[in-house]
Amino acid sequence: MSQSEFAIIERYFSQAGLAFSKPGIDLGIGDDCALLSVPSGQQLALSMDILHQDVHFPANAEPNDIARRALAVNLSDLAAMGAEPLGFTLGLSLPAVDEHWLDKFSQGLLSSAQDYSCPLIGGDLSQGPLSIVIQVHGLVAQDQAIRRSGAVPGDLIFVTGNLGDAAIALLLMQLDSHISQSVQLNTNQLTAAHRNHFLDAYFDPVPKLEFARSVCRLINSGIDISDGLVGDIGHILKASGVNGRINTASLPLSSAMKQCVNADGQIAAALTGGDDYQLCVTLAADNSEEFRRIANELKVRVNCIGEITALSQSLNDQDSENQGQDSEVSEQLKIFDAAGRQLQNITRPYTHFIKESS
Amino acid sequence: MSQSEFAIIERYFSQAGLAFSKPGIDLGIGDDCALLSVPSGQQLALSMDILHQDVHFPANAEPNDIARRALAVNLSDLAAMGAEPLGFTLGLSLPAVDEHWLDKFSQGLLSSAQDYSCPLIGGDLSQGPLSIVIQVHGLVAQDQAIRRSGAVPGDLIFVTGNLGDAAIALLLMQLDSHISQSVQLNTNQLTAAHRNHFLDAYFDPVPKLEFARSVCRLINSGIDISDGLVGDIGHILKASGVNGRINTASLPLSSAMKQCVNADGQIAAALTGGDDYQLCVTLAADNSEEFRRIANELKVRVNCIGEITALSQSLNDQDSENQGQDSEVSEQLKIFDAAGRQLQNITRPYTHFIKESS
Repeated sequence: MSQSEFAIIERYFSQAGLAFSKPGIDLGIGDDCALLSVPSGQQLALSMDILHQDVHFPANAEPNDIARRALAVNLSDLAAMGAEPLGFTLGLSLPAVDEHWLDKFSQGLLSSAQDYSCPLIGGDLSQGPLSIVIQVHGLVAQDQAIRRSGAVPGDLIFVTGNLGDAAIALLLMQLDSHISQSVQLNTNQLTAAHRNHFLDAYFDPVPKLEFARSVCRLINSGIDISDGLVGDIGHILKASGVNGRINTASLPLSSAMKQCVNADGQIAAALTGGDDYQLCVTLAADNSEEFRRIANELKVRVNCIGEITALSQSLNDQDSENQGQDSEVSEQLKIFDAAGRQLQNITRPYTHFIKESS
Repeated sequence: MSQSEFAIIERYFSQAGLAFSKPGIDLGIGDDCALLSVPSGQQLALSMDILHQDVHFPANAEPNDIARRALAVNLSDLAAMGAEPLGFTLGLSLPAVDEHWLDKFSQGLLSSAQDYSCPLIGGDLSQGPLSIVIQVHGLVAQDQAIRRSGAVPGDLIFVTGNLGDAAIALLLMQLDSHISQSVQLNTNQLTAAHRNHFLDAYFDPVPKLEFARSVCRLINSGIDISDGLVGDIGHILKASGVNGRINTASLPLSSAMKQCVNADGQIAAALTGGDDYQLCVTLAADNSEEFRRIANELKVRVNCIGEITALSQSLNDQDSENQGQDSEVSEQLKIFDAAGRQLQNITRPYTHFIKESS
């Protein structure tokens, strides 16, 4: 049966488990606008992400997985600011009505919306090439949001969880990846459990919402790792006007990664793979004990991978000259290996519109 | 020169004229989230619209026009709630980097952002089929927002401006239109000025922001006309639990429409053409004099096209039975012509996923 967008919205997206009410959401789906209330002393944090078929997920991915991932990667941006989820909007484009797909997709959204107390509050539905645009909205105490710009020399650089696993999933799904040249998979070692581990890292990243809110006061700067560690630390360094150094020996790698991927590939995936949706934060060394204690309490694994250093004058000049140029591999970040040698040729982090061959 | 999305955002979308600061926007482009403050006693209104090439605008449309239209149709949703623009987010998908296109597109956005004091505060940029997703954010005094659900029997139904012109533009641009069967263009009469009039109605709709805020207190319900008058009044009737009647003799039509389009085509375009982005509101007859006075003062033309009536019990029952069915041509709306005859076969309003032939 062919259905209009209004019937689809009513059937799949207005259901009580997905578009549930909570304090702060005064009006949800069904009018020209949704209406939110923001309590006095709080700010509204908002972030939007686009996901396209064949760019951000394979065409044959389970709709339930696509939905969960779409909401999680957005919630990860709220986590990076230390904000608490309030609700999300969805811009969904579909080539045609596929009831099975819509049913599974909306069930996936519903389960994540419940998990993170973040209901659907509005959006748009259109005919078009399959894509998902989500905007999340969250609350954070006035002037308490974690920003990229607060890193200071002497800060330690921490990351949560493991890095690089989602990038290996991309290769397993044969999606376009900028690290495919560096990675060799040891297919003899690759069990079904390994495969599931990598795919879970890609499709079901866990936004570190509670953790971020709990350690917010201890942190000077933070970002979520979406484009790859090197590129994302680069954003912190640029916004804060500092340098940084990290050591590849400290990069947190899963046992699946260690067993199934060649050594260079492990480093490439962890440094520039992207899609990790782990947090990268910087904090004063004095706060690190308390930081580790809270992480331990919340069962979030954290690893110190480096430190923030002062910006050298020469780099400062050089940086000004490079403005507007394609300088995603920041000169401000130095990367050392276990033997203390500085790595020179880091794979470019993932960027749209630039291919390795160009 | 190939550029990463970060360089594109910096060059085209972070420019001061587009991403300007204003009170309430505490943090704009450049971090994991934007941060907004909502003053005490106000609510945040938000609305998202998707625009796809070949569905919502022709591939060869001027990027400046695409941008202005994209922001205007979103701002029209804020107008429909009586909200004042605060800022907008942009999810832009591009197949490739086209500097000329980006320059013109960002200039179009900038001019509209300035016109309506609505800066760009964040979003996402991705490689993908050309599409534009905009979410607007506005402020409205607590519990003062115009809703679809407030219409009561006895209310007069008013619309602003002219109806149907944008639908004629779609035909001129040879985009898919559900009214193409009803409309015959009198090409002998169609001057360049007429053509421009229709195209302007499509590409440069003027959101009735100030007007809506000024008449907000006089109005019981409202909606902006995006899918076509019949469908959009239908949303008011459904949300309010009332019936309505309109008279085609009262539909406001431009002189270009009267000169260039056959009589049946005029009615079809005005009733179901869509893309008008005029406001349709209902108000008590006692308020109509004051309403007309304010409209006159703000140079917004308004026309009374009908009235709200009580919901009959039988229709109420019938409606429950039809739930989930495709009932966009609402049984709750009766349409009469100048001679007082009720129209029976109204063209279906525009809906995604349903074609006339199905």
